[in-house]
Amino acid sequence: MRLSRFHLSTARETPADAEIVSHQLMLRTGMIRKLAAGIYTWSPLGLRVLRRVENIVREEMNAAGAIEVLMPSIQPQELWEETGRWAKFGGQLLKIRDRKEAGYCYGPTHEEVITDFARHELKSYKQLPVNFYQIQTKFRDEIRPRFGVMRAREFLMKDAYSFHLTDEDLAREYENMKAAYIRIFTRLGLEFRAVQADSGAIGGDASQEFHVLAESGEDGLAFSTGSDYAANVETAQAAAPGPRPAASEAMRKVDTPTQKTCEDVAKLLGIALERTVKSVAVMTDGGFVLALVRGDHSVNEIKLGKLPGMADYRAASEAEIQAHLGSEPGFLGPVGPKQAIRVIADREVAALADFVVGANERGFHLAGVNWGRDLPEPETVADIRSVVAGDRAADGGEIRLARGIEVGHVFQLGRKYAEAMGATVLDEQGKSQVMSMGCYGIGVSRIVAAAIEQNHDERGICWPEPMAPWQVAICLINPKNDAGVIEAAESLMADLHKAGVDCVLDDRGLRPGPMFADIELIGIPHRVVVSERGLAAGTFEYRARRADAAEQLDRAALLAKLGA
Amino acid sequence: MRLSRFHLSTARETPADAEIVSHQLMLRTGMIRKLAAGIYTWSPLGLRVLRRVENIVREEMNAAGAIEVLMPSIQPQELWEETGRWAKFGGQLLKIRDRKEAGYCYGPTHEEVITDFARHELKSYKQLPVNFYQIQTKFRDEIRPRFGVMRAREFLMKDAYSFHLTDEDLAREYENMKAAYIRIFTRLGLEFRAVQADSGAIGGDASQEFHVLAESGEDGLAFSTGSDYAANVETAQAAAPGPRPAASEAMRKVDTPTQKTCEDVAKLLGIALERTVKSVAVMTDGGFVLALVRGDHSVNEIKLGKLPGMADYRAASEAEIQAHLGSEPGFLGPVGPKQAIRVIADREVAALADFVVGANERGFHLAGVNWGRDLPEPETVADIRSVVAGDRAADGGEIRLARGIEVGHVFQLGRKYAEAMGATVLDEQGKSQVMSMGCYGIGVSRIVAAAIEQNHDERGICWPEPMAPWQVAICLINPKNDAGVIEAAESLMADLHKAGVDCVLDDRGLRPGPMFADIELIGIPHRVVVSERGLAAGTFEYRARRADAAEQLDRAALLAKLGA
Repeated sequence: MRLSRFHLSTARETPADAEIVSHQLMLRTGMIRKLAAGIYTWSPLGLRVLRRVENIVREEMNAAGAIEVLMPSIQPQELWEETGRWAKFGGQLLKIRDRKEAGYCYGPTHEEVITDFARHELKSYKQLPVNFYQIQTKFRDEIRPRFGVMRAREFLMKDAYSFHLTDEDLAREYENMKAAYIRIFTRLGLEFRAVQADSGAIGGDASQEFHVLAESGEDGLAFSTGSDYAANVETAQAAAPGPRPAASEAMRKVDTPTQKTCEDVAKLLGIALERTVKSVAVMTDGGFVLALVRGDHSVNEIKLGKLPGMADYRAASEAEIQAHLGSEPGFLGPVGPKQAIRVIADREVAALADFVVGANERGFHLAGVNWGRDLPEPETVADIRSVVAGDRAADGGEIRLARGIEVGHVFQLGRKYAEAMGATVLDEQGKSQVMSMGCYGIGVSRIVAAAIEQNHDERGICWPEPMAPWQVAICLINPKNDAGVIEAAESLMADLHKAGVDCVLDDRGLRPGPMFADIELIGIPHRVVVSERGLAAGTFEYRARRADAAEQLDRAALLAKLGA
Repeated sequence: MRLSRFHLSTARETPADAEIVSHQLMLRTGMIRKLAAGIYTWSPLGLRVLRRVENIVREEMNAAGAIEVLMPSIQPQELWEETGRWAKFGGQLLKIRDRKEAGYCYGPTHEEVITDFARHELKSYKQLPVNFYQIQTKFRDEIRPRFGVMRAREFLMKDAYSFHLTDEDLAREYENMKAAYIRIFTRLGLEFRAVQADSGAIGGDASQEFHVLAESGEDGLAFSTGSDYAANVETAQAAAPGPRPAASEAMRKVDTPTQKTCEDVAKLLGIALERTVKSVAVMTDGGFVLALVRGDHSVNEIKLGKLPGMADYRAASEAEIQAHLGSEPGFLGPVGPKQAIRVIADREVAALADFVVGANERGFHLAGVNWGRDLPEPETVADIRSVVAGDRAADGGEIRLARGIEVGHVFQLGRKYAEAMGATVLDEQGKSQVMSMGCYGIGVSRIVAAAIEQNHDERGICWPEPMAPWQVAICLINPKNDAGVIEAAESLMADLHKAGVDCVLDDRGLRPGPMFADIELIGIPHRVVVSERGLAAGTFEYRARRADAAEQLDRAALLAKLGA
């Protein structure tokens, strides 16, 4: 490809309304152009990248045995009423009336359509298992579309749906898809994690998210150095603590006149923060509860809320705290409450000896506190804290924290949709069975933005090679003045092409400064400069996108470097 | 590909609601499944064919220098208001309101969006010419969607839009696109014609339609055996007639008591129908007009309507005829009218001598009539008739008639959209110039149906090889009983694969009858049968889809036959 015959339109200025770096760089490189809120045109440059992602996804889905179909974007209301989602899906569903006033929506997802397809196509267990996928345009009417294609309204998605006679077979295909996803994100050259996820509103039995790691990611993730364990910070678990040491101190009341936080108390007493205990007072339908975590930890609301009796808990008011503990916040503790209370101790707290808690008396804490001696053993011991960086993981590794951008999701849906829509097959005994379903999504257009969030510097995008619009840019210095420069570049390009390396020839006749700036901005992994001076010396200037400096290479060395 | 791992779902019955053969066969083969009126899911089999078409279109568009982009399907109302089409486009425009009550439509075409893209992207004549294309889903809310994907509401289209500084450059690119279209339809293996077309409502200066020939086609076409001339029957022209012979008969009144048609008069008089003249009485704003065509011809309403003063003409009433000619229909003629009338003679009528017309008197015609002697030379001589099969074409060839399905269209739009939307560039003198535009469409999904209309028999589809889901089907007889059969088939498939021939292995274990019926129904061009008996004899059974019988070939001959 010659850049003079391509349409490249870059800008130096960072657009004022683009908040995140991928959005800024996609606009500056001209990869996308906004048509309306959350609706973008993909320019020739942007589409080249999008198609690379699409092709890798398609190849790996095919290799994993999934079969490609193409479902419509416009879906009839009646189908969505069969599953109850016409009413339940919410404002993201773009509802449409056609000229005959029939109700439709622009598909934000295709569970209803594929289940309808399956109930007509699949009659016998002999046709199972089967996994249908498509790469197709979806629309979600986001209330606040932003960040360019990261959270667009119209977007490109790969969605797959598998059908099974048994849940065991679904679980097998689920693992097959997980493995395919790992191959896809590995091939794309992205740093990513497969993360345990709550299945949330979509329902089903098991699910996992795939996140591209990037500082700007919306989701907090925890992963272990000891295995591929990764989880959303909201659900991540550290290793259980070791056994509780024996008590070695007597309980004593200590003066903490203004020290209301664990940090301040630990500092005053000259002890480790890990030996203090934070008491969090909450109310539930069953009454007052004191949740205890170590001073260096924080209560994880999702974990706490999942314990029996803790659904819909709320913070206790000062009056409720006074009534149950007889003290004001800042000095609370589980020892000797005014009224009987339920105590829930985090596993780490239950494993402490000689610890420090509030004395339920303004200006005082209790030190050297021990379970079973100074207060009863806790009624409930559970993991109710959020993990922190440096925690030991269950696999023996260390917990690290990162931020991620969700680009994929695998679900075991089970029979939710098949049941609602009557998607059955006959089993070996000729008995009608509702099929079990899995669904597997990848945000194809979102991956492009996520890759930029992970791979950029102050000069622009640094594409992972498999996603780059071209692997190599061959820059011509003064092509109009010297036919030898064009000839040498074309010969180089021909050899690279033969070796399967995709090149672009920058023959636009720009001066080196603006030309190099463009090539760096659009993130081409390898840059080769062909100049009269270099040819005279028998060399080409080569520079990798992320390298600090260029090097002079002869033709053979250059080809070797570029894998040709 | 093994058919046992694919999803093939064929039906023997012809669906009752499918009127045309392509719709019937696409349903029977399971290529498509209806989701709603005019909205279809493409099954794995259907999508394989659709993708083949798409890929050939993409390759040739790229080779022609067009650059691929991807525009959104959802388009804002404001853009359509800039060109006035929001109000004018009519009911086919699917209008949508989003959650914020902003107006959008599902794009039925993309002139507005690409012109908006261009006015932001293109600033200088140096960026021209450029031709942007996309292969993308469109929606037209047809009032009566029918014939499956032939006239669907949601469909896949390739649309291209070129931008130019001058009309001359537009004309050059228009020819470039026509040549690309010819390559595309030739590569697809379809019999087609490039047809001169009225640009109709879309506007612009020149346009041509591409039609796949098929008996079931909606459009009547005329083409010449002498060149690539082809035109819609409505606008096709034959060669001009030779000079008028000298008069040799005297005019005489002949008795035609019940003969009101030219056919009956010619029969009665024992003369050729070509020597009779049909008089068609019409009214215009300027008064009464008698249009004359030969008895073997018919008036072409479009040609007649384009003559000066003939826009909005209508048939004359009996009262109007009586007032002007003093006779009733069936005996009308241009000789001696009651009042002065305008006579428009078809070129062929003006070239007649000694012809027959009505006498403007019930029960009589005039024979031996001659221009300039018996009546004045006609006021207007023009081509106002429809061509008929066998006419001589201007290129010396013979006119033939056919029916066609429109699958492509190229337009020189000119400045209509660029003017309305202010899409300008600076020219060499730094002066702002409105760009000239071309647009070029191909109905990708429609091609699939059109190809079937052209290529089928009583057993099913007969795909042109480039569009076939697979080129070769290798059918296994009793694969479970004989491992040698599978082994031989796999080895054959490996050799064909190496030669770039795409095969499918029918390892479903069906009996030969149903298996062969499926393979024929889905139209695979080449069928190879691998059986125990054949292997013992050292042969494979081969049959081309359109062949009358199978032949026994040894391995080398088979591979040679299949181009491997």
